[in-house]
Amino acid sequence: MPDLRASRRGLDLVGGFATGAVAAGIKPSGKPDCALIVAEAPCAAAGVFTRNQAAAAPVRYSRRALRRAAHRAIVVNAGNANCATGADGLADSKAMAARAAARIGCAPGEVLVCSTGVIGVPLPMPTVLAGIDAAHAALLGGPGPRVAEAIRTTDTRSKERAYRHADGYALAGVAKGSGMIHPNMATMLGFVLTDAAVDKVELQAITRRVAARSFNRISVDNDESTNDTLLVLASGASGRRVRDRRALAAFEEALTRLCQELAQDIVRDGEGATSFVAVTVRGATSERRADAVARAVCDSMLVKTAIAGRDPNWGRIACAAGYAGVPFRMDRLHITLNGVSIFSHGAGHDDHRRPFRDARGRRVTRARLAASMAGGDQAIDIDLGQGAASVTRWTSDLTHGYITINAEYTT
Amino acid sequence: MPDLRASRRGLDLVGGFATGAVAAGIKPSGKPDCALIVAEAPCAAAGVFTRNQAAAAPVRYSRRALRRAAHRAIVVNAGNANCATGADGLADSKAMAARAAARIGCAPGEVLVCSTGVIGVPLPMPTVLAGIDAAHAALLGGPGPRVAEAIRTTDTRSKERAYRHADGYALAGVAKGSGMIHPNMATMLGFVLTDAAVDKVELQAITRRVAARSFNRISVDNDESTNDTLLVLASGASGRRVRDRRALAAFEEALTRLCQELAQDIVRDGEGATSFVAVTVRGATSERRADAVARAVCDSMLVKTAIAGRDPNWGRIACAAGYAGVPFRMDRLHITLNGVSIFSHGAGHDDHRRPFRDARGRRVTRARLAASMAGGDQAIDIDLGQGAASVTRWTSDLTHGYITINAEYTT
Repeated sequence: MPDLRASRRGLDLVGGFATGAVAAGIKPSGKPDCALIVAEAPCAAAGVFTRNQAAAAPVRYSRRALRRAAHRAIVVNAGNANCATGADGLADSKAMAARAAARIGCAPGEVLVCSTGVIGVPLPMPTVLAGIDAAHAALLGGPGPRVAEAIRTTDTRSKERAYRHADGYALAGVAKGSGMIHPNMATMLGFVLTDAAVDKVELQAITRRVAARSFNRISVDNDESTNDTLLVLASGASGRRVRDRRALAAFEEALTRLCQELAQDIVRDGEGATSFVAVTVRGATSERRADAVARAVCDSMLVKTAIAGRDPNWGRIACAAGYAGVPFRMDRLHITLNGVSIFSHGAGHDDHRRPFRDARGRRVTRARLAASMAGGDQAIDIDLGQGAASVTRWTSDLTHGYITINAEYTT
Repeated sequence: MPDLRASRRGLDLVGGFATGAVAAGIKPSGKPDCALIVAEAPCAAAGVFTRNQAAAAPVRYSRRALRRAAHRAIVVNAGNANCATGADGLADSKAMAARAAARIGCAPGEVLVCSTGVIGVPLPMPTVLAGIDAAHAALLGGPGPRVAEAIRTTDTRSKERAYRHADGYALAGVAKGSGMIHPNMATMLGFVLTDAAVDKVELQAITRRVAARSFNRISVDNDESTNDTLLVLASGASGRRVRDRRALAAFEEALTRLCQELAQDIVRDGEGATSFVAVTVRGATSERRADAVARAVCDSMLVKTAIAGRDPNWGRIACAAGYAGVPFRMDRLHITLNGVSIFSHGAGHDDHRRPFRDARGRRVTRARLAASMAGGDQAIDIDLGQGAASVTRWTSDLTHGYITINAEYTT
């Protein structure tokens, strides 16, 4: 995408915001666990939240707070999800917003609240409130921990991306998560900032579409967390208004790219993952149908274990595609793995009767195909041969590492 | 169920049928792999098949053959699923029916065909046809392999159940399968015979409902095979007609029990499984909703790994229930594990503030609860607290054994 130039400055690239992060002592490890993102002036905010019936207190709080026309801040803690904490949990989320608002000098309703970490344990409020004070003090301070650090739980690395747009604004984001929910960890958070000026109603509509095409297209396991949250804040500090149709489309394209990269970073950091797999379904009669097939393949434990085993197993892929509820003809189905045909004309390829072939028609041995699957990025491409719609989803392989992390973790 | 008396005679208990099974040489192991079930006279037959778009040739053949009014036989082979074998595959299924029909002396359309085993390899037809001849010769022979043996693929044990009904007839069944699909293995088969006389139209309606409450309520992984088939044959040889409403209800109840037991046998033999888990959802406003919640919990990799890890993890159970798409109130949710309360009044239990308690209100330590999870049968009971509908589904835990079987298998 020629309109975007990557930057290493992360959230700092975006004008009109200040961030502060500290180790408040919520995580037993003593690592950074509390952060503030503050806009210099009221800004447009949009959000997408988990639809889980067991949604955590901060999700319920922020969903309601978002109805306001403008916002000033996000306050977030890691180490405790404030989930399944009853009425006290909601009061705690409100108290977090109130404390941040008092420090910033704004209304409590202008502060959005997120929490991530263990489920079912009340927030240690004195520690959290002191952490908010410290994070506020850090807003203007020099080099401290980054927001991307402070929102990690069992993530093995931080996820932060930033871009300058040719239209004259910047956008940057952070995310966390490595399973859709963790061992009693309530998981995915994403915060995106831009200094473009975008109308709140437009921003909300764009954010919803972007989430559907980024964070909602990944799976590690298939569990939807109680705390999943994506928030997008637009300060307008660049002076660039994103208003006409072209500019809005360009902004949505850039936000999609940023969010897809953050989402992919989550999959790459998936629990026990050794492979990152892009599953593209094309030739469908609608995007909805392409998505259903891609999802069935991405969620299939048998496909994911085949990838872990470096096994170009077209049978499991065709089978998963077959139960997605989307009608198609087997004799038109074409499946490639890392660019090599593994299924066509109603039958799979092998080393004997129907050789595996690359895009140029050259014969590829199973051994060479399996070698191409040894870790790193994999691409499964499924052509249904019936239309023009296509969708790509991203998943990880399923390994002993996943079982070790999730079966041997004790609450 | 007082109306049923178990028998060890298996399929032999049912009048009006003869069975024969042989080792034809389709399985490389040389184990039994070909069988015939023959009715002495035309009988009523009903069937339920996979809805997978990649349905195998024998599924497509038998689905059509079932339209006939009466049938004489089932011919089945293991070791090769005749799936993804194109037009030749359908011709091979027809040839299997024709050969069996010639031996039996009936029309080819009176013979139903099933195959199970590896996908994507053409049937070795000379071997299969010779096997059908041998299986026919074995029909009257003395002790040979059993049908339940001859349909096994990677099953570690045979699944066969038989009952005498107080209404004066017998019913018996066999099943195979240990994942919903195997490593390139196309999987679940179930055959049930009865010597009751049941009208074909009634039998089909009953079979459909029974399948929904038995084989369709289990999951090992969450994959729906290309070959899944349940066939029910009623010979009428007992002279007992099942016609009035009471008798039909009693028959359906007995068939449900038989099929649930066979389905549970499949879960117990699940790949890598060390636990058998019954998940009951009650207090729902409809059976459909109860089923959706039970399914989300049974399919959750995080719940299944928690069971493997002997972890009474109410957070993962509540979270999976929460994303089933069924609205409920967290403060009414009540979850027990092996009879011990682990979640109630909107919050989880632990060893400290809110002790785990058994049905009599006695305190149970986490250590004792975890000890109760050490292998064998587990029961998760989820009360939504909003209605009277309930559903039970069955699943296995998810272990390193599953990964080993599925990631280290090479096609």
